[in-house]
Amino acid sequence: MSDNELPDLPTEITPQSVDFGRWYIDSIRRAELADYSPVKGCMVIRPYGYAIWELMQQALDRRFKATGHVNAYFPMLIPESLLLKESDHVEGFAPQVAWVTHGGNEELEERLVIRPTSETIIGTMYAKWIQSWRDLPVLINQWANVIRWEKVTRLFLRTTEFLWQEGHTAHETYEEAEEETQRMLGVYKDFAQTELAMPVVDGKKTESEKFAGAESTYSIEALMRDGRALQAGTSHNLAQNFAKVFDIKFQARDKSVQYVYGTSWGVSTRLIGGVIMTHGDDGGLILPPRIAPYQVVIVPISRGNWKETVLPKAVEIRDSLVARNVRVMLDDRDSQTPGWKFNEWELRGVPLRLEVGPKDIAKSQVVLVRRDSREKTFVPMEGLVASVEEMLIEIQQALFDRALQFQKEHTAKTNSYKEFVKIMNGRPGFVISPWCGLPGCEASIKEETQATIRNIPFEHATIEESLCFKCGKVAKANAWFAKSY
Amino acid sequence: MSDNELPDLPTEITPQSVDFGRWYIDSIRRAELADYSPVKGCMVIRPYGYAIWELMQQALDRRFKATGHVNAYFPMLIPESLLLKESDHVEGFAPQVAWVTHGGNEELEERLVIRPTSETIIGTMYAKWIQSWRDLPVLINQWANVIRWEKVTRLFLRTTEFLWQEGHTAHETYEEAEEETQRMLGVYKDFAQTELAMPVVDGKKTESEKFAGAESTYSIEALMRDGRALQAGTSHNLAQNFAKVFDIKFQARDKSVQYVYGTSWGVSTRLIGGVIMTHGDDGGLILPPRIAPYQVVIVPISRGNWKETVLPKAVEIRDSLVARNVRVMLDDRDSQTPGWKFNEWELRGVPLRLEVGPKDIAKSQVVLVRRDSREKTFVPMEGLVASVEEMLIEIQQALFDRALQFQKEHTAKTNSYKEFVKIMNGRPGFVISPWCGLPGCEASIKEETQATIRNIPFEHATIEESLCFKCGKVAKANAWFAKSY
Repeated sequence: MSDNELPDLPTEITPQSVDFGRWYIDSIRRAELADYSPVKGCMVIRPYGYAIWELMQQALDRRFKATGHVNAYFPMLIPESLLLKESDHVEGFAPQVAWVTHGGNEELEERLVIRPTSETIIGTMYAKWIQSWRDLPVLINQWANVIRWEKVTRLFLRTTEFLWQEGHTAHETYEEAEEETQRMLGVYKDFAQTELAMPVVDGKKTESEKFAGAESTYSIEALMRDGRALQAGTSHNLAQNFAKVFDIKFQARDKSVQYVYGTSWGVSTRLIGGVIMTHGDDGGLILPPRIAPYQVVIVPISRGNWKETVLPKAVEIRDSLVARNVRVMLDDRDSQTPGWKFNEWELRGVPLRLEVGPKDIAKSQVVLVRRDSREKTFVPMEGLVASVEEMLIEIQQALFDRALQFQKEHTAKTNSYKEFVKIMNGRPGFVISPWCGLPGCEASIKEETQATIRNIPFEHATIEESLCFKCGKVAKANAWFAKSY
Repeated sequence: MSDNELPDLPTEITPQSVDFGRWYIDSIRRAELADYSPVKGCMVIRPYGYAIWELMQQALDRRFKATGHVNAYFPMLIPESLLLKESDHVEGFAPQVAWVTHGGNEELEERLVIRPTSETIIGTMYAKWIQSWRDLPVLINQWANVIRWEKVTRLFLRTTEFLWQEGHTAHETYEEAEEETQRMLGVYKDFAQTELAMPVVDGKKTESEKFAGAESTYSIEALMRDGRALQAGTSHNLAQNFAKVFDIKFQARDKSVQYVYGTSWGVSTRLIGGVIMTHGDDGGLILPPRIAPYQVVIVPISRGNWKETVLPKAVEIRDSLVARNVRVMLDDRDSQTPGWKFNEWELRGVPLRLEVGPKDIAKSQVVLVRRDSREKTFVPMEGLVASVEEMLIEIQQALFDRALQFQKEHTAKTNSYKEFVKIMNGRPGFVISPWCGLPGCEASIKEETQATIRNIPFEHATIEESLCFKCGKVAKANAWFAKSY
């Protein structure tokens, strides 16, 4: 696509019921979260979208540091020979990488890939740095961009370049690595539910869905408002797979030489897409207060000499909120009407609108309008900051509750494949069914229904004696199925 | 270099007087700031080095936001056709870029470059986003990695991949763009001097040293302890150069259609190298407290039953410092002696060491040792936190003062080219001399002495009637010469 062929900004947002995919893209572009770029499959994250990412980063980084991790940075270019070392890994990623073949005016002796993920380059460095059990655990995270060559892309959800964090750790024992893998999955779950108000199902991926090179992969999965699942974060126990290939050894407490046990885990800018599709409505975005760039928008009602009467009050309110670290936008443009501003900030998903006009000032009150419920409340000026803070907490909770309710209503349990097919052909959602654990069976379900096993959820991990709903063999687990992004 | 040929970590740090370049690399690797990677010219920024970068980022980002800027993210891959649009720009950067020619298993129709800088891709987007004077100014910054193919590299100072921030702004008038260009240079100067304790000279680059595509470039230049200059940050007034090429137009207040005026400005991880070479000594790093990952290291004196007697006191001190947001490392390893720890944290540049042993506890005191002066003070436990905070402020100031003193002692002023050559052949430094402003004259000075014009410093911008110290023509400016990194 040339830069002259970029589609124009939409003026209207397509309703969800008409075309959910169109609604998603319209909402993003109209709210100026992101835009298409002249580079195939690559997007631009605009300031409003990037501000959400910054808040997500802060909330994650705080959690990583609280669990003992430190940040570092590794080269983005990886020599082909390193990528080729781990056979499962190369099989998984080689078809997806961008190749650098020339540097300056010269052809390179060895081709380089732009990292699709960094296990290989980080493993190479760990082999240098780790000598003794005293050097363990190594708990490093990296904030970085990665490239995975994608044929079909969608803003935030699947783009050729995306931003993410990737944790890479090394441990003395298998048990410690497994504990770390699950700890970080827990961090992701807490982050998603607390910060993004996005309920998730945590569990283990099947063999066919696990990370290329891992022993086991865990994931958190969220349900979008169109009934499709979104993989929102993954955590991998690499066991000694990469350690053996990259020769990451240490002298153990008993003086023997051992390979380390590794983990890796990541979440990406796709979470922004997850938030949009978890909470948004036909009016556009609805952002959870904890990650909203602006938690409150103040719209002064511009009548008469409002700049002398209303505006000073609006400024005073803004300053009192900012003093309490509330993120506030005071929209004092006189080129736009209040009605236009209401609509604009609604589609940008600002959780709370504060209107103040001459009448309100006379009554020493303001109007608060919630984005989620559109509920309108008159609130006295006295104690306003506390009222706003309280309402932001309520909105955060209400968004989570509503999303959880939606998830429950769209989660079915069935032992009948016929019913399963029927659900998947209607408006889909999660379906929990007993499954044999065999990849062939999983593959035919996918082929026939497009549904995949999202994970084997922890809360349904134990299974009573039953038969696979598809092939009739003995069931090994309750699997969590959905069509997915 | 294969991963098996990476040089081992140095055990000793080469003295500065023996080999400054060796000292620099030894200090970095011994302190675990960074390491060589198996990717030619690319380095790994290790956690201790990355922690410095995080503190620098926070201090810069705060300043950018306080001056009205927002962050965004643009694709790292740029189609060849975009790079080729601005002729000066392509001439400057084409020899330095990495080329992506294949994606997945397919050869690309159009080659892509990994961004060496982002004027072209950002300009393309600005052309879409900017319609009216109401959309201006656009004040965007990006934190990103870039690639410039380098033949000779040096940790932090010149690496094929590096991390930086790049600001890109668009304005209605030339005057506003010029004001922004100088404002951001001022932000850099304040940041360098306040946070890094690194005195800098601010001024304008000559035509031959300016950014490829800019109308004018300003820089801050710092003097390293070997007498060489380091370009520490640049700010460019792009005038309408990129706007005309990328068609960034707007409807002006008078309804006419105009091209925007642009600026761009950046600093990078090379600043970490600048800090090392501004403050370090033969013992290794000396970090200014404001960007030190650990401002204080507590070393408990491990005699007798120290874990029962000394350690609880050390923990208590640590907690009281952490409560005041002092960054503290309590080194309670029992595998190492206090003497070993003193040496270790000295070479890692921790500004202040706090020793506490049984005798100190008996006297209700601790020992504080400054890294910069190695001065040792006995400080009463009573009011300890305030004493530490005060001393950190003193150290920050002392480092700046010492560096400024060094800069003054290594700045000469001469009208004689003979003397100039003599200085440059000895231990060099800054030399201020009257210059004709002609590129040919500048080039022959460089050829004969390796010295370049760092900038035309603001404080010496006006010049009395005199002749060029090299060619004898009428002098146009006082130029600031140095050999540089």
